[in-house]
Amino acid sequence: MIDGIAPIEASTPTSLSFLSNPLYRPQLATSVAACVIVSPAMRETAVARGACIITDDPYLYFARLTQWWKQAAGRGPVPGIHASAVVDPEAEVDPTATIGPLCVVERGARVGPGSWLKSRVTLGEDCHLGARCIVHAGVSIGADGFGFAMDRARHWEKIEQLGGVRIGDDVEIGANTCIDRGALGNTTIGQGVKIDNLVQIGHNVRIGDHSIIAGCVGIAGSAVIGRHCILSGGSAVLGHLTLADHVRLSARTMATRSIAKAGHYTGFYPLDDNAKWEKNAAVLKQLHKLRDRVRGLERDDPPAAG
Amino acid sequence: MIDGIAPIEASTPTSLSFLSNPLYRPQLATSVAACVIVSPAMRETAVARGACIITDDPYLYFARLTQWWKQAAGRGPVPGIHASAVVDPEAEVDPTATIGPLCVVERGARVGPGSWLKSRVTLGEDCHLGARCIVHAGVSIGADGFGFAMDRARHWEKIEQLGGVRIGDDVEIGANTCIDRGALGNTTIGQGVKIDNLVQIGHNVRIGDHSIIAGCVGIAGSAVIGRHCILSGGSAVLGHLTLADHVRLSARTMATRSIAKAGHYTGFYPLDDNAKWEKNAAVLKQLHKLRDRVRGLERDDPPAAG
Amino acid sequence: MIDGIAPIEASTPTSLSFLSNPLYRPQLATSVAACVIVSPAMRETAVARGACIITDDPYLYFARLTQWWKQAAGRGPVPGIHASAVVDPEAEVDPTATIGPLCVVERGARVGPGSWLKSRVTLGEDCHLGARCIVHAGVSIGADGFGFAMDRARHWEKIEQLGGVRIGDDVEIGANTCIDRGALGNTTIGQGVKIDNLVQIGHNVRIGDHSIIAGCVGIAGSAVIGRHCILSGGSAVLGHLTLADHVRLSARTMATRSIAKAGHYTGFYPLDDNAKWEKNAAVLKQLHKLRDRVRGLERDDPPAAG
Repeated sequence: MIDGIAPIEASTPTSLSFLSNPLYRPQLATSVAACVIVSPAMRETAVARGACIITDDPYLYFARLTQWWKQAAGRGPVPGIHASAVVDPEAEVDPTATIGPLCVVERGARVGPGSWLKSRVTLGEDCHLGARCIVHAGVSIGADGFGFAMDRARHWEKIEQLGGVRIGDDVEIGANTCIDRGALGNTTIGQGVKIDNLVQIGHNVRIGDHSIIAGCVGIAGSAVIGRHCILSGGSAVLGHLTLADHVRLSARTMATRSIAKAGHYTGFYPLDDNAKWEKNAAVLKQLHKLRDRVRGLERDDPPAAG
Repeated sequence: MIDGIAPIEASTPTSLSFLSNPLYRPQLATSVAACVIVSPAMRETAVARGACIITDDPYLYFARLTQWWKQAAGRGPVPGIHASAVVDPEAEVDPTATIGPLCVVERGARVGPGSWLKSRVTLGEDCHLGARCIVHAGVSIGADGFGFAMDRARHWEKIEQLGGVRIGDDVEIGANTCIDRGALGNTTIGQGVKIDNLVQIGHNVRIGDHSIIAGCVGIAGSAVIGRHCILSGGSAVLGHLTLADHVRLSARTMATRSIAKAGHYTGFYPLDDNAKWEKNAAVLKQLHKLRDRVRGLERDDPPAAG
Repeated sequence: MIDGIAPIEASTPTSLSFLSNPLYRPQLATSVAACVIVSPAMRETAVARGACIITDDPYLYFARLTQWWKQAAGRGPVPGIHASAVVDPEAEVDPTATIGPLCVVERGARVGPGSWLKSRVTLGEDCHLGARCIVHAGVSIGADGFGFAMDRARHWEKIEQLGGVRIGDDVEIGANTCIDRGALGNTTIGQGVKIDNLVQIGHNVRIGDHSIIAGCVGIAGSAVIGRHCILSGGSAVLGHLTLADHVRLSARTMATRSIAKAGHYTGFYPLDDNAKWEKNAAVLKQLHKLRDRVRGLERDDPPAAG
């Protein structure tokens, strides 16, 4: 009898557990789990312990198990448009899609088959969402991009944002995230892109297929992100830059130039206790002078062969 | 006749003022306030000036005064469920709680006595909110945590988020903040925790009692924050880390390792004028080479006693 | 026959194009656009190419053209209050204003002539919005500022926020941005201020006329921002600071002190590949020791004149 799924380190006699993190291998032999999902490398220990499922990728197996579990628990969406949602008569919502409570779907917007707007989502005019997408609470798709020209009185004159948003299939968008419409063309999100909460995506941004954008990321207007990129939490990309496929930005790292080569890029200030930070930060503000002092010392050096 | 509360530096003849910031002490003697709230140390000056209230903690007295003032002005919540809110029949809302306009309370959610969802809040399935909580506009509680496994085609496969959110009593949550549900277990917010606007709290995070989280903070999945911590504006904590009780992060500081010891930690790039920043940042990118040059100079030094 | 507006580098035979970025000048002569908008400096090339509009500021001309285009396409607001919006009977909404679907306008709030709350906006009690403002989806105006006093049990006691928000004319506010009400006085946004998405503006902040605040900016309580300032994406201002008129903060830059002089200020960690960042960051954490080593070397130097 199994009544839940648990990581190996929190397993109970009625849980189905999985071992994907090698850190927890020592706990396999003594785990009380009803059944464990392990890789072939762990077969011997797992079989000696008791019931087990052996699979090449326990973490992926676990992912699919959670999907089956949720389905079995009757937690999936109920297709249709909630009575409290405001859907324009000129919007197109696939009959297999779900528009949750208090959503707004504007004129010319489209929602593809199986997609799910959870609650309080705005899908703006002429913004298209693909199939099997999940959009969490509070998301804004299709607000105006941020574009202004300065007039002679030094006031800001609005550039109306005439483009839309095109979102591929199998995209997930986290709570309170914003994706702006393009100025003239469209803002484009590729297939299978996963976006976390509180992310800002500016106008005319293009994000390649299967890239992943963690929480609190900011992507400025007209940036182009490649396929299979990873933008870690709080990272950022300045406007009009291009990131190649398979670029990974560390947390809090801001791309200030285009990146043509796949790889892992970083730029954040390291943590320290406050007193040490204060000392180091003070020197940092004079760093080029320190460099000049080192240069001076080098010039004054007696010749090494002397 | 008193018609308002004002800080001492902005007092009027009809205001009740308080002096908590010692910076403004010189203004006490000449303040025109109808009455002033001061600490015993200021008794003499205050009495000489006119009407006063003497209390050990003027700032705390002021806080309670604002509460009384708001109550007297009839600005408190009116318990009940607003007609425009969407509350699932299987949710439990205490009769003394207030569900404001256009909120969504899903199946299995619970709202404790005296709690107040202001407007446009989503409280997701199986998420529990304690007593006397205040939740501001646009908050999302219980969106899916951000969890995916990669399949063989290098696509992201969703890990359904089967846990909930547990929020203690006397918690306040700022506008457009997001608290994700746990993957298997719960995301947990302790008693008396205060959270500002636009904060991101990932799945399975645990925040200890009476900690305070300022605006724009990001806390990644499975991080554990102690009791009485202070996370200043824009700070961040990476996933799976643990912060001890009484840890304070400065603004914009990212905890990239667990912190076992109470104290004040910092890590942000200091402000400078742009030209100086450019010079210093260029040297910073070659800092380890500068260190090597200093090492070289040290090795070439003639012996001091020579 | 013209059916759209396009930048010169994406022009088609039926597009009206503009050339404001000198980078694209070489493309003018060969552009297939039906008509091009250029500055007098480009007159000769433009006339030789075909139809053109010559104006001192092509970008501003383009901005106004987008406005005319949007108007002509019938995409402007339809004044009135959407049936799904919740507007308090004691709120004042100008008859020429537009309150979009699922907005909340509380008691004592005011919306000036021609202003437009797009969808799912909360305008809180006693918050006033000027004329011709645009407020995008999910915005919160008037949530409580973040103020607490600590009591003797080390619990946080709420300071009720009794002030309001005052927003000038011609202000635009991006999706899911938050502007908190003042503690005692008001939070104040000047005329013509433009604010992007996911911005946090704390209680009692004052922003001067025609300043521009890009996405993901955080401004802490009681900060005062001058006129014509530019706060780039992800920048921040700590509480109680003052920024002079015409101050510009680079992206991700945090003002940690008041800035009395107009100019361009920066403070963010430069991007690098991860391996180099790791080496440099390690030295940065010992920077003051490196400085001491340089000092030591300088003291040991034989006199230059020796």
